[in-house]
Amino acid sequence: MMDVLIAGFGVVGQGITEVIRDKQDLFMKRFGERVRIVGAFDRRSMALDPSGLDPTELLSRKLATGQVGKVPVATDIEELLRETAYDMLLEVTPTNIVDGEPGYTHIRTALSAGRHVVTSNKGPLALRFRELTELAARNRVQLRFEASVGGAMPVINLSRDLLMGEEIASIRGILNGTCNFILHRMKVEGYSFDFALREAQELGYAETDPSYDIDGVDSACKLAILANAIFERDVTYSDVVRTGIRGINEEAISLAAEQNKVIRLIGEVSRDKLEVAPRLVPAGHQLSIGGTLNIAQILTDMAGDVTVVGRGAGRMETASALLSDILAIFKDEEARRNATRRAII
Amino acid sequence: MMDVLIAGFGVVGQGITEVIRDKQDLFMKRFGERVRIVGAFDRRSMALDPSGLDPTELLSRKLATGQVGKVPVATDIEELLRETAYDMLLEVTPTNIVDGEPGYTHIRTALSAGRHVVTSNKGPLALRFRELTELAARNRVQLRFEASVGGAMPVINLSRDLLMGEEIASIRGILNGTCNFILHRMKVEGYSFDFALREAQELGYAETDPSYDIDGVDSACKLAILANAIFERDVTYSDVVRTGIRGINEEAISLAAEQNKVIRLIGEVSRDKLEVAPRLVPAGHQLSIGGTLNIAQILTDMAGDVTVVGRGAGRMETASALLSDILAIFKDEEARRNATRRAII
Repeated sequence: MMDVLIAGFGVVGQGITEVIRDKQDLFMKRFGERVRIVGAFDRRSMALDPSGLDPTELLSRKLATGQVGKVPVATDIEELLRETAYDMLLEVTPTNIVDGEPGYTHIRTALSAGRHVVTSNKGPLALRFRELTELAARNRVQLRFEASVGGAMPVINLSRDLLMGEEIASIRGILNGTCNFILHRMKVEGYSFDFALREAQELGYAETDPSYDIDGVDSACKLAILANAIFERDVTYSDVVRTGIRGINEEAISLAAEQNKVIRLIGEVSRDKLEVAPRLVPAGHQLSIGGTLNIAQILTDMAGDVTVVGRGAGRMETASALLSDILAIFKDEEARRNATRRAII
Repeated sequence: MMDVLIAGFGVVGQGITEVIRDKQDLFMKRFGERVRIVGAFDRRSMALDPSGLDPTELLSRKLATGQVGKVPVATDIEELLRETAYDMLLEVTPTNIVDGEPGYTHIRTALSAGRHVVTSNKGPLALRFRELTELAARNRVQLRFEASVGGAMPVINLSRDLLMGEEIASIRGILNGTCNFILHRMKVEGYSFDFALREAQELGYAETDPSYDIDGVDSACKLAILANAIFERDVTYSDVVRTGIRGINEEAISLAAEQNKVIRLIGEVSRDKLEVAPRLVPAGHQLSIGGTLNIAQILTDMAGDVTVVGRGAGRMETASALLSDILAIFKDEEARRNATRRAII
């Protein structure tokens, strides 16, 4: 049995709760074990049960009352994260790029208490990556964060696990689906920037305050995480040289089109580069991809370019990335258990 | 120390030998161990040394004499594979789709003897997949074969490891770079099929007898492997409904272009589909990719489409895929060793 505690019960928390409920057969079939939610909390409430909570009940309570639990959330969250019995924290509170809180405290406390952490929260990783990964190593637990970059596009685990033998020279790509949607619509429909932004907002792709996306902050956070995780750098999101897409007008789009090019917000990271900015991309080039997709081109020494494309955001897409990390930990734990069993016998 | 035996010393065998020589720092840094080549054989010769062979010496001897070893290859290869001490067989002899030999016998013997196998050889996997994977499971060793499909495009490990939590509905894509090159050149340069084929032959992309590529046999083998490995089917390459590209003439290419489409040799596999055939693909669609690249679109329940693109063939590209499998086995062995150590202490 793998016992999980869920910190944050917004769109992502609800998504992963649904997935945990619906994928029990997979857990049993693949690992002979279940995943049990033993706790969940949001800003104001919490639900705890060491024998397991009913995912459907959590979801319907949240829907009906706006709160995941029936009791007020503990006043001392650190104590809760230290004293509750669970194997893995799913940290899915919203990204805060000022100080990474409350995610930073959640992750730090869980790792210190010897619990695995799987997170979609960019803040703590874009601000205090090295500290948290060292804490995980010291406590011999895993901190995994595929969901923090590119949603269902598995760029981190692809680079770290499948391309483990490669020297990765650089990664470049489109890491923000909202900007890509806006640039794509400006080109295809001839919309102004403001009109395309409004459309993205109406479709739910962009927030009411869209600056986090269109000023490149979101892309910068993701680049910082890639720099830290894959290039072993020690940077924060403010180290990223950043230009957003506010300055892109219809004229720029037309001028690009005259040269048979499109404008895309391209992020690039390597040992000595860390930058996001609008770039001219030849039409038909892989990076000219449209819609809300994310894409990453990983340049390696032996494999050449390996490119991965996927849906960069969304409830199920983020849950999918969280699930892949949960299963990776499951798999390692299984290998450990099997070896231990054999050694003891 | 991981001791490997290399069966086959053509382009792929030489490539992986070079990589093993050049990546020792990586093995040490990541796993604190070296990879040692304790044996290698080709059609006529062999070299064996339990204390390790010098990779550079093997490579220069092959270059100078056409043979990897100084002594004739053992008359009883099965005995050699059973009685020699090694941890892992690298089976890189050429694909034979009539009976899978000699790869089939090599792989079966090594697995039976409790050795891991990493292979790029499509024949045994496209003909006797179930038997070999069951043999590996019974002997508690791994049979890995990323290099058999799509070269450096990591479609198998991506589907099986990173997307382990997904229900994969289908995979479709371009699995043969030679056909893609020919179709791409016919479109872009207006070449006839025969002319584009000759160009591919001159550039070394196509064999003197090109039927294996252009009749879709190579793609069919890869689809059969994907069907077996990812959809848990039990098929051989002859179960694949197969149409090659010999029938594609300049008129077909022009007619497609008039509709703003291109012709691509698309393979598709799902629980109930197993087919490779030329298809019309809208220009700008991800599957309209040019050159010798391979692409796979993996359709999943939660992540939606995840697409991966990479170089489908080549010496270093195939070596890269072999290396990723070697490292995956290394990683599992390390987890086992660590757990065993902890259990014993």
